[in-house]
Amino acid sequence: MASALRVLGIDPGLTRCGVGVVDVRRDRSASLVHVGVVRSAPDEPIERRLATIAAGIRVVLGAHSPDVVAVERVFAQHNRNTVMGTAQASGIALLLAAEHGLPAATHTPSEVKAAITGYGSADKLQVQTMVARVLRLDTLPQPADAADALALALCHAWRRGSAATPTGGALTPAQRAWADAERLTRR
Amino acid sequence: MASALRVLGIDPGLTRCGVGVVDVRRDRSASLVHVGVVRSAPDEPIERRLATIAAGIRVVLGAHSPDVVAVERVFAQHNRNTVMGTAQASGIALLLAAEHGLPAATHTPSEVKAAITGYGSADKLQVQTMVARVLRLDTLPQPADAADALALALCHAWRRGSAATPTGGALTPAQRAWADAERLTRR
Repeated sequence: MASALRVLGIDPGLTRCGVGVVDVRRDRSASLVHVGVVRSAPDEPIERRLATIAAGIRVVLGAHSPDVVAVERVFAQHNRNTVMGTAQASGIALLLAAEHGLPAATHTPSEVKAAITGYGSADKLQVQTMVARVLRLDTLPQPADAADALALALCHAWRRGSAATPTGGALTPAQRAWADAERLTRR
Repeated sequence: MASALRVLGIDPGLTRCGVGVVDVRRDRSASLVHVGVVRSAPDEPIERRLATIAAGIRVVLGAHSPDVVAVERVFAQHNRNTVMGTAQASGIALLLAAEHGLPAATHTPSEVKAAITGYGSADKLQVQTMVARVLRLDTLPQPADAADALALALCHAWRRGSAATPTGGALTPAQRAWADAERLTRR
């Protein structure tokens, strides 16, 4: 499937980190490559939990060789108790992308919901339902973190695909990845 | 200096990440091993900035082989504009500690100030002055991020050294590192 853009979506978290890989073609159709959740034990020291998350993401990067990594954007005003761990996990996801020579991008939860369901305040069930429909899955992706990771990956491909090329400017790494994918499609 | 505990202190940040390495002996005296600041360019993509920070920390870990890593604790309520980048950098510092097989710990800015100056609301100049005095430096460590990293490393060693061994409980990794250092001192 050389003509598709392969996107790894990561819904960062310390206890559950959703990872989803999809192939998205130029006609916006998509297929599932991998979905899973990397977990770390809450009673482990923070540095070991982060190492467990990193190891799990590295396995997915190595096994599925994505073209680009999309990570959910974390906001400081979200749930205070977990936001720092989520931010730390997101930093590790972005670092691993760079260390694999891949471009990375972040998208907000509203951007993801809007891209997938057409509605920025969609609930989790609506997102899971649309992800299952787009990827032609028989069951809803579970748990929600896994569905969110797939939604993020689809959102990234679709948003990049529809974005206009900046006039007179350099392409972002993600735009370059899409341009490359589009050239392959035309062959 | 096998009888000293070597601590790497990291004041996490994306634009400037302070790194300081000190040797702390059982009598609480300390000496400077290394101090510096790892910088990343604000106009680089976030994933490349994090990779630059990681590479800089790895150089210090490789060159100075600390026994333990102390990282400043980040709070969600701090400066909204930079807190997420700071949290991401702190996650990377903790990850690198774990990947080098080292225990890690976090300390709050107030804990560091109290340990160094005796006053949890000390200003930056007071911290820099005390760090210079403890380490017998001719000039104040500059910039503040570098001084903070050294203060964090000293704070970690001093707090661990004075902490009572938990009754009937297992030692934390940092407490184990201290116990090991103390055994070496007694030889």
